[in-house]
This record gives sequence, structure tokens and C-alpha cells, in this order.
Amino acid sequence: MTQPYTSHSLVRVRYAETDAQGVVYYANFLVWVEVGRVDYLRAAGLSYRDIEKHGWGIMIVEASCRYHAPARFDDELQIDTWCDEIKRSSFRLRYTVTRTEDELLLAEGHTTQVFLNLKEQRPAALPDELRAILERTAAPS
Amino acid sequence: MTQPYTSHSLVRVRYAETDAQGVVYYANFLVWVEVGRVDYLRAAGLSYRDIEKHGWGIMIVEASCRYHAPARFDDELQIDTWCDEIKRSSFRLRYTVTRTEDELLLAEGHTTQVFLNLKEQRPAALPDELRAILERTAAPS
Amino acid sequence: MTQPYTSHSLVRVRYAETDAQGVVYYANFLVWVEVGRVDYLRAAGLSYRDIEKHGWGIMIVEASCRYHAPARFDDELQIDTWCDEIKRSSFRLRYTVTRTEDELLLAEGHTTQVFLNLKEQRPAALPDELRAILERTAAPS
Amino acid sequence: MTQPYTSHSLVRVRYAETDAQGVVYYANFLVWVEVGRVDYLRAAGLSYRDIEKHGWGIMIVEASCRYHAPARFDDELQIDTWCDEIKRSSFRLRYTVTRTEDELLLAEGHTTQVFLNLKEQRPAALPDELRAILERTAAPS
Repeated sequence: MTQPYTSHSLVRVRYAETDAQGVVYYANFLVWVEVGRVDYLRAAGLSYRDIEKHGWGIMIVEASCRYHAPARFDDELQIDTWCDEIKRSSFRLRYTVTRTEDELLLAEGHTTQVFLNLKEQRPAALPDELRAILERTAAPS
Repeated sequence: MTQPYTSHSLVRVRYAETDAQGVVYYANFLVWVEVGRVDYLRAAGLSYRDIEKHGWGIMIVEASCRYHAPARFDDELQIDTWCDEIKRSSFRLRYTVTRTEDELLLAEGHTTQVFLNLKEQRPAALPDELRAILERTAAPS
Repeated sequence: MTQPYTSHSLVRVRYAETDAQGVVYYANFLVWVEVGRVDYLRAAGLSYRDIEKHGWGIMIVEASCRYHAPARFDDELQIDTWCDEIKRSSFRLRYTVTRTEDELLLAEGHTTQVFLNLKEQRPAALPDELRAILERTAAPS
Repeated sequence: MTQPYTSHSLVRVRYAETDAQGVVYYANFLVWVEVGRVDYLRAAGLSYRDIEKHGWGIMIVEASCRYHAPARFDDELQIDTWCDEIKRSSFRLRYTVTRTEDELLLAEGHTTQVFLNLKEQRPAALPDELRAILERTAAPS
């Protein structure tokens, strides 16, 4: 087995993402981990566009986040994404969100997503290619 | 001709909609006028869901907003919506956003939207029913 | 002890909250549970505005959601909110999001939030009034 | 006078920004032009953070957008930003949003923003430095 693969994504905090407490509104971390998820899958050879071309969808069935420190407007953040669990039609991704300036961990979390046959609106087995890549690169949980 | 028809919608400002200046982020007014637009069309007998069932879409081609005073968290706001221009495949809606507590005008604006045949991705003539309702209820611009 | 208190909030799904899969984007459930949280605290006698007047803030330290079925544009949803854990400076709220039309459970989750002294940016003991209300109305977890 | 200065910003469309019509929700263009605005001001030597440190704010008083073609998930977009009007306490920025892949113009618009003394919540004269830069680099409108 090769080393667990982790993708790295950068975002800069937008004013739109802040709230009246002067820091980022908590739901926006889920938007950023989506950026991480898309980049992870792209690096694994599977673009969201390809997914949709095949009539598949990715449905989040669980999301969780722990917040350690607030993000602020104009912060540059790094999202690290890796896989730590693979099942028949779903897999779990883990994320950390770190402020690049001082490498402070702001938040960490995970999402579990199911592969979906969009026409039938039913779970579908992970495509073999994706499964192979996930299995080769996932971290033991 | 009957009187120009105006629909009234209420929203309460969410924390998610504020930004680090302590007031509502400007783009959210366009989300609220969508609430007004949906209610207006529903009152005119045309639900968005019906629109999509018919394979139509509504595409915004122009949006504009003037901001007079900030909205704050937990404010209750009224969106008034009326039509002031009807063309072959598009119509213009006008909006005001008012704080209900003291009837202060916070913002006003308009959107112009085109009726779309989604399959062909081309403008479609306004459905006769909608045109009839718009013509009967629109304010002269 | 009185019965566990549950607050009920209603939202209607906005077009802005949907995504290209035709259903609501997953992060928006966290926005809706904020609506539930605000209503819960208001019912408990504590408005967010009062909180901020006192120089307090509420910082989410953990959020979690399990998704059972998608929400769609124009669905009316009910958010039920109750408290099931109280600590010195934090408490946990639990939520369910149900489609009112058929009472289908769409999602459930929780948030843990810390009371914050905003000036010092440090956790503060829960205000006595809030603690009393939470203790009187919380469900055993 | 030097040439009109235009700043260039890049964003990649997030899934969160799409809606059930399969394209980007119209209000998100105002979020992207904020990215353009922040970059423009930074290039002009004035970061939003500095603005806030000085007790100033920037309040949008007018925003307008014309939409020519939809943006889709994962598109890379370029926002071009320039100034074409300067007044005592306000200035106007113009924007274009272009798909980088084929340089197709998706949208164009403007915002007018007022410099605000946040404590007094009143318009303030543009800082001399900013005025000098804007005047040196603005395009004739």
C-alpha cells in the first residue's frame, strides 16, 4: 500500500462568509470542505463533472465539524482532505482547515457521502476506478 | 384594468445573512427579492414548481438594488413585489424591502427575467395565462 | 422537573438554497438550525440581541448533521430544537428538520455552543437565568 | 494621467453557488465582484483590514448586474475591476465576469460604495491616499 494521500486546497475568506460577530459563520466551513472534496476527487481522477455525466450523484449523508478557532476575513486557509473509510457505496472523507499564516488549526471534520444513481435515486456501488484509488490512498481510520 | 397588484412577503433576518460590519451583507437582498418573486408568481397562479414541470425556467438577465439603510439581525422585513414591464418573453419586477417595525425603506430594486425553454435553452414566449395575469395587474412603469 | 421543552420553527426552502443536484445544498441545514436555535433561546427568554448587548457571544464549537432525505425548493420545513446537555459555559442543542407536508424526517443534528465574553474572547459561565431555564427544560440525553 | 487600472481576480465556481436550474444562482455574482473589489483596493494600497483598523467601513449603496450567460460548477472565472467615477465620499467600481476557458463574458455590473465613519455611522471623505490612487487610475466613465 502507498502512503495515505492528502489533497491540499486553498481558499481566501470572503467578506460574505463573515457574520456580525466579526468572524466566519460556522456553516461556511462545510462550503470549504466541499472545495477540499472536489479537489480530492479530481486528484483521484474523478471530476464532479464526470460524475454527473455518468448519471451519478454524490449525496452527503453525514457531516460533522469541530471548531477550534475562528477564521477571519481575508485569512488564507488550507483545507487538507483524505479518506479514512470505504464501504460498498459510500466513503468517508476527513478534513482539517488550517490558517496558512501561522499553521493554526481552525477546524476539523468529516463528511460521509453515498454514490447515487440519480435516475433511480438509489445508492450505487462505488465505481471500480474510484474504489481502487480510494483503497490505494486511504488512511487507516 | 384592475389596480396594480403588489404581493407582500415577510422574512426575518438570519445571523447567516449578516457580515463583519454587523449588518446584512448586500447580496442577500437579492435572495430576499427572490422570496418576493416566488410569492408574486404564486399569487399570480404560477408556482416555480409548475414552471419547472412544464420544462420552463426563469433566468434573471438583470438585477439592480439601491440600499438606503442597513438591515440587522432579527429584523422583520417586508418585501413588496409588483410588475411594471411586460415583453414577449420577459417581464420586470420591482421590489421594496421595508423594516416592518417602523416601516423604514431599507432598499429597492428590480429584476428582469426571461422565460426559458430549458431543453432548448432558448427564450420562450410568456405563457398566455401568466401574460394575462401580468397585464391585468401590472403597474404602468 | 417540567417536561423537556422543544421549540418549533418553520422555514420555506428558498431557490438560493438549492444546488445543481436539484435539492438543498447540505450546508444550509446549519443555517436552518440557527433559526431553530434563535427561536429556542428567544422562547427561553434570551434573545441574541440581548446576548450581544451584554457583550456576550455564542460560539459554535461543534456541529453535526445526519441527512435522511433531501429537501427541495418550496418545501415547508419544521425545525424542532431542544437542549440535552448543560455544562459550565456551554450547552448542547439537538435538532430535527421535518417536512411538514408529510412529517418526513429529513435531517437531525446537534450543535454545542460556548458562551463567550466577547471583550476578553474567553468562555464565560452561562448566565444564571439561562442556566435555570435550560435546566428546567432540558431533556435527559 | 496613467492608463486606467484594472485588477484581475480568479474564482472557481463552487457547488454551493449553483442552484436547481443547474447553473450559478444570480446573487452569487455580487459575492464574486466583492472578491474583485477587495483585490482592486488591495492593489490600490488599501486593504479592507486597514479600512476597518481606521474605524472606516465601506457601505454599498448601489449594485447592478446584467447577466449574459450562465456560470456552471467548476468554471474558472476572471473578475475584472476598475473605477469609473469618484465623488467626495463615494466611488463607483465596474466589473466584468468572464469564463477563462473561452473568454466568454458572463456578466457585467457595478457597485457604488460610500466611505463610512463607522463610529458616527456617517459618510466620510475618501482618504487622500485612496483618492489619489483612484484619480490616477480611474477610467473616464
